[in-house]
Amino acid sequence: MTDLYFDFLCPYAWRGVELAEVLRAEGEPFRLRHYSLVEGNHADNAAELTWRLTEQPHGEGTLYQQGSLRAFLASHAAAQQGEEAHWAFTLALYRAVHEAKGTLDETAIQAAAESAGLGLERFAADLADDQSRRADLRAELDAAREVGVFGTPTFVLPSGEAAYYRFETLTRDLNTAREWWALYRTVLTSSAEIGTIKRAKNRPPRKGGQV
Amino acid sequence: MTDLYFDFLCPYAWRGVELAEVLRAEGEPFRLRHYSLVEGNHADNAAELTWRLTEQPHGEGTLYQQGSLRAFLASHAAAQQGEEAHWAFTLALYRAVHEAKGTLDETAIQAAAESAGLGLERFAADLADDQSRRADLRAELDAAREVGVFGTPTFVLPSGEAAYYRFETLTRDLNTAREWWALYRTVLTSSAEIGTIKRAKNRPPRKGGQV
Repeated sequence: MTDLYFDFLCPYAWRGVELAEVLRAEGEPFRLRHYSLVEGNHADNAAELTWRLTEQPHGEGTLYQQGSLRAFLASHAAAQQGEEAHWAFTLALYRAVHEAKGTLDETAIQAAAESAGLGLERFAADLADDQSRRADLRAELDAAREVGVFGTPTFVLPSGEAAYYRFETLTRDLNTAREWWALYRTVLTSSAEIGTIKRAKNRPPRKGGQV
Repeated sequence: MTDLYFDFLCPYAWRGVELAEVLRAEGEPFRLRHYSLVEGNHADNAAELTWRLTEQPHGEGTLYQQGSLRAFLASHAAAQQGEEAHWAFTLALYRAVHEAKGTLDETAIQAAAESAGLGLERFAADLADDQSRRADLRAELDAAREVGVFGTPTFVLPSGEAAYYRFETLTRDLNTAREWWALYRTVLTSSAEIGTIKRAKNRPPRKGGQV
């Protein structure tokens, strides 16, 4: 089982979740896990953790903060209906925000719940149980901190190797997904003990469109 | 021709230069180029470039600053004796500092010049031409800035793809070096358009020693 840490705010994580969705179809298991970029990058947390997303009231802070908190809690509410429901909700919300370029807000969350085929009454009830969903989220953010997650997507392999994997191109093609996943795993398990491969800032222009 | 940006301060760059040295033996061409971590990470340069290593007097600033400036200028002095002399000096100085755990100072620089078989009188004369060596260095640091180098080693492939490549294990074995270099190039040229693969901070313990 590979853990996949993601934040709904992040287009790279979206592509990571789509990659995992393709690979799941042939039996490679992934577990969806949340990591908060707003909490992780918060200035108050530079020295030690003092600002927690899970302690923030709804309707306060930046729109990124409000949208990501609400989306995480809704994602946990969807997960109450099982793993497949959780994947369907996660993909629907990601596509609404990063493919259809919508806003990460309550409307998008409700639309994603519908298009994912969730039981809507139960979803509403589970989401209304705010304290339980915040507890779910807080436990996951604590787990991310243990791993040392700093960005999304981060994959944690069954062997314990964990890394941020940022790529620009979306694929839903099985062979392409296999190839990109194999490359990532090869980097993490190479005898070179690679810590980082990161492009220089001034990249040459992109050669073409999306796959 | 692949450009290899390095700083004598950096053990990752040392391993990168050793990797390139192995690959040069079978005809893969690399060009040694300097990048200053002290200048790149200087607080005064956060918004725009205002602090330049090449404008600092000898004997001022931190020991890192003094040592790296002197080593860069010495490296340019060695380069006046040709490409092979430059590689020999660079490797000798790197090994003295990062393998034999010496200090990056004038003594180490003179010893490296000797063990590299440089013409010592000419080396001294070229190093004494401080203004010319500073001009050489400044031009290179400007070139690094154009590429967007932010750490070492950074390799710039003939195709223009450029990235920081940080790995923990030293190799001087040809097949291993080939494999690690092929993996790096595959990441940079993958259709995924990978921007970053970077391990999470809390790595599992290393399994063993050096290759």
